[in-house]
Amino acid sequence: MLKEIGIFDEYNLLIDALRGRGAFLITGLETPNPMTIGWATLGVIWGKPIMTVLVRPSRHSFFLINSHDEFVVSVPPPEMGKQLALCGTRSGRDCDKFAECSFTREDGVRVKVPHIAECLMHYECRIVHKNNVDSTRLDASLSQQYYPGGDFHTIYYGEIMGVFKKE
Amino acid sequence: MLKEIGIFDEYNLLIDALRGRGAFLITGLETPNPMTIGWATLGVIWGKPIMTVLVRPSRHSFFLINSHDEFVVSVPPPEMGKQLALCGTRSGRDCDKFAECSFTREDGVRVKVPHIAECLMHYECRIVHKNNVDSTRLDASLSQQYYPGGDFHTIYYGEIMGVFKKE
Repeated sequence: MLKEIGIFDEYNLLIDALRGRGAFLITGLETPNPMTIGWATLGVIWGKPIMTVLVRPSRHSFFLINSHDEFVVSVPPPEMGKQLALCGTRSGRDCDKFAECSFTREDGVRVKVPHIAECLMHYECRIVHKNNVDSTRLDASLSQQYYPGGDFHTIYYGEIMGVFKKE
Repeated sequence: MLKEIGIFDEYNLLIDALRGRGAFLITGLETPNPMTIGWATLGVIWGKPIMTVLVRPSRHSFFLINSHDEFVVSVPPPEMGKQLALCGTRSGRDCDKFAECSFTREDGVRVKVPHIAECLMHYECRIVHKNNVDSTRLDASLSQQYYPGGDFHTIYYGEIMGVFKKE
């Protein structure tokens, strides 16, 4: 069973996941695809609760997130290291990661992108803005570390439509 | 006395301020200038703790933040409604807002921009990236609501160098 919680109530669960083994960014409808992420921010912009996530153009998730303007971030329980590793290294172009991980699709409540039912908590987001990491205005050491081959991230600003926790 | 705390420990204090009467974005060195903000996000990007804040080109803070690549966000106690109103309506071009509000300058610990000593908590940030709200990829209703005259915000990504709380 899912229980709706306050948007910022369980921020620490999200941060702990991001700073630990990661969380899942889920995009796509017909073949939803989870990608492991370690980067995201949460706060208020334009008077709305906003989550930002970053996706590189080379990723299969880039095609999916641009197709539907919605995404879900599912926060895993501690024992999902194996699935996080898989979803961080394999591409959804070559396999169905929901099937590979034996994940159960759970319908989104306010978005059409599904959750991973086995996860603890889900942020449902509708994209209201996107822009790009600007290569000309990025710290030089970060540029060298993360973008030696270009492929600069697009930053997606999702209005958080609801946060749901497994009871 | 200031005590250093974990970067994400008091996220709720920040969010409550943003969703309430606002927090102070402080920029500039010689004449530091607090501007009231209701928008910010906090999280992890490029493996670093990042706070994002937004400033419009028309603001005096825009000139200041671009001059020093550092900023501080000070979170006020509940009784600072009057000062938040002043710093949200007056411009630092026309007055010294620290003086007008009878604020005490407190030296930053890891940045050169000062804190407002009367505030509860301070995020010290060094800018590692900036980009712009992209008018061509913003939700139409947000565009109408916030940018009828253009003046699109620049988004500043500050690496959080430390978070300090008043004891």
